Amino acid sequence: MSDFDPRAIRALVFDVFGTVVDWRSSIVREGQALSAAKGLSVDWAAFADAWRAGYRPAMARATAGAAAGEGGWANIDALHREILDALLPRFGLAGLSDAERAQLNLVWHRLDPWPDSVAGLQRLKSRFAISTLSNGNIALLVDMARHAGLPWDCVLSAEIVRRYKPDPEVYRMAARLLGVAPGQLLMVAAHPSDLRGAQRAGLRTAYVPRPLEHGANPHGAAPADALADDRFDVVADDFVDLARRLGA
Amino acid sequence: MSDFDPRAIRALVFDVFGTVVDWRSSIVREGQALSAAKGLSVDWAAFADAWRAGYRPAMARATAGAAAGEGGWANIDALHREILDALLPRFGLAGLSDAERAQLNLVWHRLDPWPDSVAGLQRLKSRFAISTLSNGNIALLVDMARHAGLPWDCVLSAEIVRRYKPDPEVYRMAARLLGVAPGQLLMVAAHPSDLRGAQRAGLRTAYVPRPLEHGANPHGAAPADALADDRFDVVADDFVDLARRLGA
Repeated sequence: MSDFDPRAIRALVFDVFGTVVDWRSSIVREGQALSAAKGLSVDWAAFADAWRAGYRPAMARATAGAAAGEGGWANIDALHREILDALLPRFGLAGLSDAERAQLNLVWHRLDPWPDSVAGLQRLKSRFAISTLSNGNIALLVDMARHAGLPWDCVLSAEIVRRYKPDPEVYRMAARLLGVAPGQLLMVAAHPSDLRGAQRAGLRTAYVPRPLEHGANPHGAAPADALADDRFDVVADDFVDLARRLGA
Repeated sequence: MSDFDPRAIRALVFDVFGTVVDWRSSIVREGQALSAAKGLSVDWAAFADAWRAGYRPAMARATAGAAAGEGGWANIDALHREILDALLPRFGLAGLSDAERAQLNLVWHRLDPWPDSVAGLQRLKSRFAISTLSNGNIALLVDMARHAGLPWDCVLSAEIVRRYKPDPEVYRMAARLLGVAPGQLLMVAAHPSDLRGAQRAGLRTAYVPRPLEHGANPHGAAPADALADDRFDVVADDFVDLARRLGA
């Protein structure tokens, strides 16, 4: 049995890409508008998957480069653009201008929430302080919250400590800045690897699987589900269910 | 003539103590409830003024100590408590328990807004991203926003860079994290010294005097008004007037 008591929780921090917002459908929708306007035929679902697949390797390179003193740490806007530029030729989009690339890169600032996200966050906010804890940079998260109506009390990002989750310093930073002990902070994510990182830093964990994150019939990089020996404090169907389980 | 164009502004950052919230009346109100409950007679207006007067010297000591390597930087919660403990005997409150002191120290997390603050921020938010840029720590600012209904898009604090305004790095951090050039960022404050610091870092400035910050008839430390040679981009009566002047 878990010794978890929701009454000991003082604040909730949320992974964002995939957990709060549906990045894949949002990219497909904006991409289709772009290719319709330009008279191009593009497999935007494959494009979105390839863009997202470049994310972890790019973060690993940025982290290794910064640690080796090879120039500064790079934020997610910069990494998204680097991946995008490498990707465009494969999808017949090498002709996009610099302005078009910059505009497309900002699609990550305009992602749409899952259907339960706003209602669930509103209900959770009535009882707990709620914050992002994303690898996305703060400007991106602020734009997204304004676009999607996400009612954050605070916007925290790995950018503040110039590292990336699951580095434990990112989770510790959130507890320190929110003025709570790690054990009073609940990390909410759709990705077990993120929750394992939070556990290593002493946080409590809520797993909210998002089975449609990679589409209805994912192929290629399959979503990473929880393992049989994972022990998260809460498992919820969505954010409204999470609020119910936490007594909010 | 100023070359200021509100259309070039992408985001607004706000000083908080005195500019957004009325710290003095809030402390007097909570103090009166405390002394009534304990049957004590305390001049809470003088107490609030003395507490606030200790703020700048305490920040200077914290900054100097951190620079000299004498232990870590201290946040405002810690500085407020240090000043409070030194102040209590002078006001006949030396008998307060540790729990009572901790509770009183958190009054800074529960300050009330000026009458125009929430309506003005809502209107400004419809057009610009709005964020705190306070010397107050993030946990304090989050609690205050939840208490007072302040609709921030983002909560930024000098704590993130472990310095205090008017250090230029604090203002530069805000522009960097909000993803805008310093000249696209407007600092809003009731204190000319804060705005001069913002100007030195390349930000635009809006001066919103709060003549009641130190009470209706301030004595002792008088409020520091703008000097004849100060040149701020906007001067507004309150936040609703500021929204009007910025076309929001």
